[in-house]
Amino acid sequence: MFRKRINADEARELFLNSFPPIPEIEVLPIEACDGRIIAENIIASIDVPHYRRAAMDGFAVIASETLGAGPGSPVMLRLANTIEKGTCVRVHTGSPMPEGADAVVMMEDTELLDDRVQILAQIHPFKNVGAIGEDVRKGELIQERGHKLRPCDIAVLASLGIRSLKVFRRPLVVIIPTGEELVQRDKKYLKPGEVYETNGLMASMYVKKWGCDVRLLKIVTDSPDLIKEAILSNLDADMVITSGGTSVGKRDYVPAVVDSIGKLLVHGVGISPGKPTALGIIEGKPVVCMPGYPVAGIVALFYFARSAIRKLGNIPDEQDRIVRAELSEKITGRTGYKTFARVKLDNGKAIPLSTSGAGILSSVSKADGFVILPENVEGFNAGEEVDIVLIE
Amino acid sequence: MFRKRINADEARELFLNSFPPIPEIEVLPIEACDGRIIAENIIASIDVPHYRRAAMDGFAVIASETLGAGPGSPVMLRLANTIEKGTCVRVHTGSPMPEGADAVVMMEDTELLDDRVQILAQIHPFKNVGAIGEDVRKGELIQERGHKLRPCDIAVLASLGIRSLKVFRRPLVVIIPTGEELVQRDKKYLKPGEVYETNGLMASMYVKKWGCDVRLLKIVTDSPDLIKEAILSNLDADMVITSGGTSVGKRDYVPAVVDSIGKLLVHGVGISPGKPTALGIIEGKPVVCMPGYPVAGIVALFYFARSAIRKLGNIPDEQDRIVRAELSEKITGRTGYKTFARVKLDNGKAIPLSTSGAGILSSVSKADGFVILPENVEGFNAGEEVDIVLIE
Repeated sequence: MFRKRINADEARELFLNSFPPIPEIEVLPIEACDGRIIAENIIASIDVPHYRRAAMDGFAVIASETLGAGPGSPVMLRLANTIEKGTCVRVHTGSPMPEGADAVVMMEDTELLDDRVQILAQIHPFKNVGAIGEDVRKGELIQERGHKLRPCDIAVLASLGIRSLKVFRRPLVVIIPTGEELVQRDKKYLKPGEVYETNGLMASMYVKKWGCDVRLLKIVTDSPDLIKEAILSNLDADMVITSGGTSVGKRDYVPAVVDSIGKLLVHGVGISPGKPTALGIIEGKPVVCMPGYPVAGIVALFYFARSAIRKLGNIPDEQDRIVRAELSEKITGRTGYKTFARVKLDNGKAIPLSTSGAGILSSVSKADGFVILPENVEGFNAGEEVDIVLIE
Repeated sequence: MFRKRINADEARELFLNSFPPIPEIEVLPIEACDGRIIAENIIASIDVPHYRRAAMDGFAVIASETLGAGPGSPVMLRLANTIEKGTCVRVHTGSPMPEGADAVVMMEDTELLDDRVQILAQIHPFKNVGAIGEDVRKGELIQERGHKLRPCDIAVLASLGIRSLKVFRRPLVVIIPTGEELVQRDKKYLKPGEVYETNGLMASMYVKKWGCDVRLLKIVTDSPDLIKEAILSNLDADMVITSGGTSVGKRDYVPAVVDSIGKLLVHGVGISPGKPTALGIIEGKPVVCMPGYPVAGIVALFYFARSAIRKLGNIPDEQDRIVRAELSEKITGRTGYKTFARVKLDNGKAIPLSTSGAGILSSVSKADGFVILPENVEGFNAGEEVDIVLIE
């Protein structure tokens, strides 16, 4: 029997509150840090730039000497290597400003005559000069612990001369496919009643995409002892995902096994498909038990496993890829359940796919995304514009 | 001198029309195909399921024998291993239907009395039975060439017994940072005028994220001969990205070098920041010349390099991650330019960051995304709701 069915959000909150993030940190070269979560605050130890720089190609000058200069009234300066009264120095974008110069006259406003330069525009002090620290100021907090690093962030850190960073360790997730009907994917032909193992494979790829290391076990048959042994011998991992055996049939042992060696928090969730999802904790490690029906499984993965991975891995929440489109047909939710309806995008319209059939994995593969119907929404009508969460 | 400045969209179209996608294909195990582009149509060679399966835990029956059954009028059947008149067979979700049975009475509607079963509900033929091919039908087109594979797609293919797939080869992109002011990142201290190389590093990480293999070269100084040699000796790559030396100063040799060994298509684009971007073709290979100023460089990467990579790699266009938010302050575009304004998200508001300063890389790192102002838009007002393209 299921426990009392729990609302999807409540179930998730209960689950997420029952384990802590992984505190361990590792040090990596910055080149390897794209997508990793920084585990330290970074204070800039130098100014960037650390010297006054020309912001244009042209001539560095003492601005006050250009007073009154214009196309009809050029000021003549001598081309030199240092600045003193009456001289200017050739500079390129980014090159250091010569001492004494306080502005750059851009090339277009000058005329070079051998060793002299006609200045054809009057400029103000600091014009076309990049100040010390204009990009990053020494002492500034430049990265905050907990941020997911992007290449542009890493480039800024590299500009400070930083060559390695402390980042949070990736979670290691063990994935345990269960079910006596399953056969390994290297078997050539299927007998009636046999099904290739695909949920574990799918889970392993999503979990990797979400920033984890993965250990995908071989199929465990429907035996409480073997399931228990598979879990207990993999608790060096940070999280366990099982697939299959979560319903209330004779061969559905997984929730009871979780409860026998840990604490079963939830069994039966108001999510559709995905009701037979179970959630628990074993030795402090979160356990997500995906239903064996693949669509239910993927919903459990997206809704529970991904959130758990974010918490474990200190990964900030991320905006989903969402498109808005008009429904071509009505979709209805299951009363009291958060319903994940699959839709295909076609010419800017959202076309609902078979919303029944938790066993029809191809309906996910044919779908571009989910329309998520809250528990209190009966459905959306044809022609209504809805948010579609694209399936990664 | 720049060539005539070209509108950003026109420049991109001209560029993308000047080289073909990479036709080469490789064969990979399906486990390695997440995110890859499939290079073949897949027709299902088997039905999934390939047998009639029970869709519930319960008893397989001949539906007509349940006629009139109800809680007050049970029909009694004998529990057996095969179906004949008067018998039923125990089945689990997913198990093969016994020959002769055409429906499954769910457990909840039965009562087991030793070797007999009370059927407490009348059911119709096909009830709780999964038909052969209900998920995938033999002969059905299940994946189309050109699709970017997701874990759920791969799971469907695995359910057909497919173990490897033809996918398009990833583009190999060579990245050449240029500039005599640059120093390698392993140098401990900087002299005035020296800057750590970061644009090449940043480009290499983005290009990898976008699905390419990357070869990041060491810094090449501002010498036409050395730049030429670096490009020519790396034309085994599918695409070249240079950084720096694209403006019109004395040390800006890159566009001229491209033109001397290939065809310079564009130099000077209506994009801000990013005007000094140059685009060309050498021996049929696309070349993106990023401006050395890092913000201009990143805009050139996002706008031109990413599109070129998609074309080369046969990668379908992908929805950006977009959020909508209200501007806290007015932003203005540069007239005649597509302007990329950096904004930070805070409490649902979009706060513009310094829109000037193409040299201020930290403004990108501080930003969550870009508001893109079209050429014909003067600006957006404070309080206006805008699309923010999140920076990956």
